[in-house]
Parts: sequence; C-alpha cells; structure tokens
Amino acid sequence: MEHETKLCPSFEAAFELLGKRWTGLIIRTLMDGPKRFKDISTIIENMSDRMLSERFKELEAEGIVTRRVYDEIPVKIEYELTEKGYALEPMMNECEKWAENWIP
Amino acid sequence: MEHETKLCPSFEAAFELLGKRWTGLIIRTLMDGPKRFKDISTIIENMSDRMLSERFKELEAEGIVTRRVYDEIPVKIEYELTEKGYALEPMMNECEKWAENWIP
Repeated sequence: MEHETKLCPSFEAAFELLGKRWTGLIIRTLMDGPKRFKDISTIIENMSDRMLSERFKELEAEGIVTRRVYDEIPVKIEYELTEKGYALEPMMNECEKWAENWIP
Repeated sequence: MEHETKLCPSFEAAFELLGKRWTGLIIRTLMDGPKRFKDISTIIENMSDRMLSERFKELEAEGIVTRRVYDEIPVKIEYELTEKGYALEPMMNECEKWAENWIP
C-alpha cells in the first residue's frame, strides 16, 4: 500500500478542489475552448459574477486556468484551461457517468 | 448547457464526498474485496479507528459501503463496496493518473 498511501494527499486535493460549488461546471465550460468572463457568466446562469471571479482566482492559483490579456482596444481578456486543466477531461467524464448512473 | 447545469449538483456531491480525508483511500482499499475493520486500519496506518468508524458511517449512508455481519462465534463483521461503490473505479483510476501527472 506504500504507493497508494503516498498518492492519497494529492488525490484528496484534486477531489476537494473539484468538489467546490461551480468549479466542475466552470472547467467543463472551458473544455470547449477559451471564453470571456461574460460568456461563462451567461452560460452558468445561477452563479454570481463575484463567485466566478473567486473561482477563477482559485483555478489560476492551482494552474488549471490561465488568463490571457489581448493588447487590443478595448482590451480583451479570455480565460483558458492550461494543459493541466484539459487533462481533467477523462476524470470528469467518468465522474459524470458515475453521477448519472448512481446519484438520483 | 441545460444538461450540464442539471448534472452539476450531483457531480459536485460526488467530488465533495471523495475529497474528504481518507475516503478515497478507504474505497481504494475495498476495491480488492471485503475487509474487516482491523484489516483496513492496519493498511491505512495513520488513520485513527475513530476516523475510520466515522467514514464507514458516511459511506454506508451514501450507499457506497455495506456492512455484513456473519452469524458466527465470535461474530465476524466485514465491510464491502456496493455496486455503486465498485462503479467508482474508473473515475478513481483517472483521478489518480491526473494527480500523478500534475500534482507535485
């Protein structure tokens, strides 16, 4: 069990992060490609802008989302998954399958 | 996004449950088959017996683990994953892969 005992903290960290309200849905929305703040807040209707800012900060701190500023007038800002973020897709797919089958 | 917006709460519920300290490791240990309390507390060295009881209660309440009492003397009690519990394996495998690759 040595291997799994060591793996445990990072495993839990991953689930803890993804268990936060809206986080999974924000990541899922970004799987289609980069989006502007307004795009996401339109798609996820019930989430406040303040919450979205907070989640973006957390996801940036975790290296899952990156913020890209385009040098245009007016300035254009997009949020995009990093490689680490896109790498979550297989796990999220499996989790959704499980939840669909097993959570009423 | 209708589909995903609805899926969101159960998705988050799954991650929240699995993000709790020790829960993932307990489930992983039971993937090999039913175990007695003592077997698990021996395998997962740093977890207290009190914590393990608490986690078992939560997992039973979620329908992920079942407690089987054998009518023997002395009484034998085993904990076993339900079908819902075993169904977590693909997601846990993907999560471990992700954590191994991306969490230092």
